[in-house]
Amino acid sequence: VSGTAMRASQEDFENAMNQVKLLKKDPGNEVKLKLYALYKQATEGPCSIPKPGVFDLTNKAKWDAWNVLGNLPKETARQNYVDLVSSLTSSSKSSSQAKPGADRERQGYENLVVTSEDGITKIMLNRPIKKNAISTQMYHEIMLALKTASKDDSTITVLTGNGDYYCSGNDLTNFTDIPAGGVEEKAKNSALMLRDFVGCFIDFPKPLIAVVNGPAVGIGVTTLGLFDVVYASDKATFHTPFGHLGLSPEGCSSYTFPKIMGPAKAAEMLIFGKKLTAREACAQGLVTEVFPDSIFQKEVWTRLKAYSKLPPNAMRVSKQVIRNTEKEKLHAVNAEECRVLRERWMSDECINAAMNFLSRRAKL
Amino acid sequence: VSGTAMRASQEDFENAMNQVKLLKKDPGNEVKLKLYALYKQATEGPCSIPKPGVFDLTNKAKWDAWNVLGNLPKETARQNYVDLVSSLTSSSKSSSQAKPGADRERQGYENLVVTSEDGITKIMLNRPIKKNAISTQMYHEIMLALKTASKDDSTITVLTGNGDYYCSGNDLTNFTDIPAGGVEEKAKNSALMLRDFVGCFIDFPKPLIAVVNGPAVGIGVTTLGLFDVVYASDKATFHTPFGHLGLSPEGCSSYTFPKIMGPAKAAEMLIFGKKLTAREACAQGLVTEVFPDSIFQKEVWTRLKAYSKLPPNAMRVSKQVIRNTEKEKLHAVNAEECRVLRERWMSDECINAAMNFLSRRAKL
Amino acid sequence: VSGTAMRASQEDFENAMNQVKLLKKDPGNEVKLKLYALYKQATEGPCSIPKPGVFDLTNKAKWDAWNVLGNLPKETARQNYVDLVSSLTSSSKSSSQAKPGADRERQGYENLVVTSEDGITKIMLNRPIKKNAISTQMYHEIMLALKTASKDDSTITVLTGNGDYYCSGNDLTNFTDIPAGGVEEKAKNSALMLRDFVGCFIDFPKPLIAVVNGPAVGIGVTTLGLFDVVYASDKATFHTPFGHLGLSPEGCSSYTFPKIMGPAKAAEMLIFGKKLTAREACAQGLVTEVFPDSIFQKEVWTRLKAYSKLPPNAMRVSKQVIRNTEKEKLHAVNAEECRVLRERWMSDECINAAMNFLSRRAKL
Repeated sequence: VSGTAMRASQEDFENAMNQVKLLKKDPGNEVKLKLYALYKQATEGPCSIPKPGVFDLTNKAKWDAWNVLGNLPKETARQNYVDLVSSLTSSSKSSSQAKPGADRERQGYENLVVTSEDGITKIMLNRPIKKNAISTQMYHEIMLALKTASKDDSTITVLTGNGDYYCSGNDLTNFTDIPAGGVEEKAKNSALMLRDFVGCFIDFPKPLIAVVNGPAVGIGVTTLGLFDVVYASDKATFHTPFGHLGLSPEGCSSYTFPKIMGPAKAAEMLIFGKKLTAREACAQGLVTEVFPDSIFQKEVWTRLKAYSKLPPNAMRVSKQVIRNTEKEKLHAVNAEECRVLRERWMSDECINAAMNFLSRRAKL
Repeated sequence: VSGTAMRASQEDFENAMNQVKLLKKDPGNEVKLKLYALYKQATEGPCSIPKPGVFDLTNKAKWDAWNVLGNLPKETARQNYVDLVSSLTSSSKSSSQAKPGADRERQGYENLVVTSEDGITKIMLNRPIKKNAISTQMYHEIMLALKTASKDDSTITVLTGNGDYYCSGNDLTNFTDIPAGGVEEKAKNSALMLRDFVGCFIDFPKPLIAVVNGPAVGIGVTTLGLFDVVYASDKATFHTPFGHLGLSPEGCSSYTFPKIMGPAKAAEMLIFGKKLTAREACAQGLVTEVFPDSIFQKEVWTRLKAYSKLPPNAMRVSKQVIRNTEKEKLHAVNAEECRVLRERWMSDECINAAMNFLSRRAKL
Repeated sequence: VSGTAMRASQEDFENAMNQVKLLKKDPGNEVKLKLYALYKQATEGPCSIPKPGVFDLTNKAKWDAWNVLGNLPKETARQNYVDLVSSLTSSSKSSSQAKPGADRERQGYENLVVTSEDGITKIMLNRPIKKNAISTQMYHEIMLALKTASKDDSTITVLTGNGDYYCSGNDLTNFTDIPAGGVEEKAKNSALMLRDFVGCFIDFPKPLIAVVNGPAVGIGVTTLGLFDVVYASDKATFHTPFGHLGLSPEGCSSYTFPKIMGPAKAAEMLIFGKKLTAREACAQGLVTEVFPDSIFQKEVWTRLKAYSKLPPNAMRVSKQVIRNTEKEKLHAVNAEECRVLRERWMSDECINAAMNFLSRRAKL
């Protein structure tokens, strides 16, 4: 299967169709709809059949998925189909290299691939179709993976993303799943979960490295201030559009970002949603080093493998000496940010922004 | 009409009522409701009429607007009414191309031009012949303008300078105006005023942006560490010649500058008076972004107008979350800096340096 | 005498031999052995005589010194001989400009040259053969020199190194001198001394400037975060290989480095031992400014002489206002770092790393 853009042959396409039939795990309705739509677009072109009635739910969903592709060229649709299948099988394969079938079942991770090798535990966000947006379930999986890694015998721990994105932030559909207690209870639960989630990064006891393979958004950016080292591909970008969503900063970024880059650069990101390139983020201290995407994985892993061989206790102790100078402050900031966000999530500004975003996306 | 707090007379109030009738542009429902409420509060006191029925929309809105004022004293309501009308007429006038003479008289600012438009309140230092050096009166005017802006309905507030300079710092002739109590009383009063002045920047509740149109000196530089965003023309420079004047840092720069640029760059500025170019100040994190002077105003205001349309409460809350991580520390630093400066102002080093400066200037 | 690498002529060599005879002060056994060995290598080539018996101490020491040079080319040995003599005479000359013979004896410094001129007290590490590694005695000498400088009438104080290095860090042979109480007592004493040493930098009351003439390692790097200004030659590098030695950060670097350069850059240095060039260290805020080596001394001393003429009390007070915002925090960090290091020094990781290092060096 070719991963190179815009070169999928008819043969690639047919191979991909066969691979879909061999998938051992149901990829879920959303992926199936996307596969259907790309297949139709690739073979028949733009959707021109009549819109099904509003109560014909299945056909309506299929029609929506196809129709949303608009005038996407057949070749692009074919390529996207091949890529999508590739990501489905590669994630199942890459896990199978690490005996992941077994691993994942044992680990119980739906949206992560966690491997441990050469003294390095690697936690990979594995929801590429959703640009590694973090669903509620995924927050819990990441917390579990971090807690497990903090106790295993690896010397350093790495967080990275599968596919084009590092992490596109909080999955906004999390907010559509309102419990019986209504928006208030939802906001309360979300704040508690966020506080625990960020707390795992604050308390992580070993060197924690982010390998930022592509764009990072929201909580995927703010938590970077809590890592020890951040390597980025030059395809990565750093975007915290809190303002646009009626929200306020989290992940201790209200404290770490002004400290790292000065208030004048931090506020333009955190209040006004200025997006940074990888080079800008590096110049401002958020990123340790930027690598051209073509050599990113090779360079970074070579370096990490060398680092992982240093005396482990010294690394652990050094990390803790550094972190302890501000751990208490970080926990206090985290608590306050979550308290404020809980109110924000119930605000008209936030609810309007979220509805606009979701309805805009629904229309695509 | 005086803009000074708590001094609106009955005559001011009646003038304001007349001005409302002359407004050429409908100020919008929100403002009209606010005018209604302040008028009622100023003339009748707290709202005590029964709450209208839920379907009596207009009266319900008016009742809400009045009721929300709670126990606001009549005099304050009268003053706020006068101030609100003043801001309406000044912004309508400033849009109609200045007539700033009238404006300024009404606002009571001698050395500032304050306008409010597009959700942005702009405070412009307007003493270009003195390179916008800050006289004692001007300190008070800036404090008043900031306090007024903190309560108006703008979403962001901008400080900038008229003419070639952004601000050439403290007007040294302030020190020639010695009161009956002598130098000691002068130093005491100056320290109190400086502490209040810097306190206004620490406590400012909304995004505060510096548009640094030209050279900045002394207090015009040190307070930049308390802004959220600092845009600079490439003609701007940043100079804190405290050492040469026998003085020590203020504006919380003894804390913010080492935090922003590291102690090794901060001390060369603050102790040894190294002057930075705009690009250097940007590389070191004091400035958010530098623009060529030819496009400076256009680029900056385009960006600010876009930012001003973001959800205002989210911006306000985000700013406060960021500021609250260190507000207490900033106030303590401010107090200590002023305490030390009070002694410095009475020192031989400072008095000699000031006399040299003034006599040198007198000869020029 | 030429200082340029690899160009010493036979004439230079003979001049150097004559200068050795004229030295007024015994350069100590270590230097004499090195001179002997370089002379033999330069004139006879690699050591090929039989190893003396283990009780023939003097000849054994001479044989060791010669033999350790291995296959060092004759020309290089000749050059190194000339350079070594040059450093001996230049240090005695530069001191004699400052009446150093008398000075040094009075001061009792073995490994420092301390001069005071133009309002500047200059403390020069003077152990160039050991790349200015800091021996136990030297720690005490630096503390004494700082305490003396803090009370003299100079306005600023400078720390720099003689020879190619600024400071190669803690002399690891310090760890071979184990007292009767064993490793535990050694670790306890070292932690107490280190705490006092770093405390002198925290409490130093005047502007303190580092003139980093060449590579800096370990404690020579970490303490830079406590200086007010750091000028570096472009030949300088900055290296903190704590991890490789099983150690953890000191000199308050666990606090100052993340503050100066952000955690993502600081941890790669402090945990993983990434070495920085002078330009990188400047971009990240650890260094104030970098100069080409050819003009380094001239540019820096011109600037320092100008700064030394500013009002001294203002500089002193400004430094203290800046330092006081975090002095208490710095002392707490210093205490904690030393507490942790005391444990590290007794750890297997550290003892193994030190033995590897010393035996590797012994083989060279």
